[in-house]
Amino acid sequence: MALNNPNPLGPWKVTVYDQENFQGKRLEFTSACQNIMDCGVDNIRSLKVECGAWAGYEHSSFCGQQFVLERGEYPHWESWSGSNAYHIERMMSFRPICSAKKKRENLNHKESKMVVFEKENFMGRQWEINDDYPSLQAMGWSNNEIGSMQVQSGAWVCYQYPGYRGYQYIMECDRHGGEYKHYREWGSHAQSFQVQSLRRIQQ
Amino acid sequence: MALNNPNPLGPWKVTVYDQENFQGKRLEFTSACQNIMDCGVDNIRSLKVECGAWAGYEHSSFCGQQFVLERGEYPHWESWSGSNAYHIERMMSFRPICSAKKKRENLNHKESKMVVFEKENFMGRQWEINDDYPSLQAMGWSNNEIGSMQVQSGAWVCYQYPGYRGYQYIMECDRHGGEYKHYREWGSHAQSFQVQSLRRIQQ
Repeated sequence: MALNNPNPLGPWKVTVYDQENFQGKRLEFTSACQNIMDCGVDNIRSLKVECGAWAGYEHSSFCGQQFVLERGEYPHWESWSGSNAYHIERMMSFRPICSAKKKRENLNHKESKMVVFEKENFMGRQWEINDDYPSLQAMGWSNNEIGSMQVQSGAWVCYQYPGYRGYQYIMECDRHGGEYKHYREWGSHAQSFQVQSLRRIQQ
Repeated sequence: MALNNPNPLGPWKVTVYDQENFQGKRLEFTSACQNIMDCGVDNIRSLKVECGAWAGYEHSSFCGQQFVLERGEYPHWESWSGSNAYHIERMMSFRPICSAKKKRENLNHKESKMVVFEKENFMGRQWEINDDYPSLQAMGWSNNEIGSMQVQSGAWVCYQYPGYRGYQYIMECDRHGGEYKHYREWGSHAQSFQVQSLRRIQQ
């Protein structure tokens, strides 16, 4: 294996377009954008992540549906939305996920860590996690829900369905003190405790 | 961590329904189904995987779009489809993925192995992989394509977009001799070499 330097351009860079397939008005960012309309663009319809891991949001000010954006090319809304139940093709704000670990530093799988709890408020059965799980139930988790979570290190994304599909919930050690004690704290789009897969966000 | 036995019911079991949200006619399977219409059902509209990892297909006889189905609950087509570009809400056949490794046996990440190549016919730059990669470009892969693949051990799923989104291509060591030398061998739905993330299929 002799791969190129994966971070030739610095720690954070994303290029967004106001039309699908990398067409139309083009803007580059190296830090958070709270409202893309302030840049004279009505919506983001395609994007390329060139450095770092980012969180995209349906609404301005980092509200609404959440989308994990890792390095690569996203030609249209469905390429980042992960087949959510409601289709509102909007991305209006985004920011770097600063606590995401570098994958190469994380080969021993000990750097990212979180604890999931069966019930809200860190109650019930608990399980310490430091790896990716495309199916929590395959590993013996008893149902399709998580009640609460404590992120001790790194950044994580939880998904409604197995195999990293459905609603995305981004959980970070440096936000909320890493504590997410009820689904109401997972994001304004969260409507239930349903989580069936989760993984580390790495860059 | 004190979790239940993750495989209480044997190695393979899936329950399918002809209506969304686990409603309507209900059928249980412990092995492959080549055409759900032979069971008097016109389409699968929700399902629960109770044991093992399965591959679902848009058409009968394991053709068309592919869907990885790991243990858990899938209440509608979008929960397994992974936001593909074309929306034909059909799943007509499915089968166990026999070469998928047990996750617990695989903690050292040495059991599943494949080699990806820059060009078709196992040409160009190559990279041996034994871990999950939500972004190949973040790890230094130079573009958004893979030319060909050799699966040496286990089963893998490749995705069109980063973060395990878009078209799914299931690659197994015990099919095609593990050799996928052109995108035409990845499945009848494959239309390009575009692959931006891939992961092991575990159960």
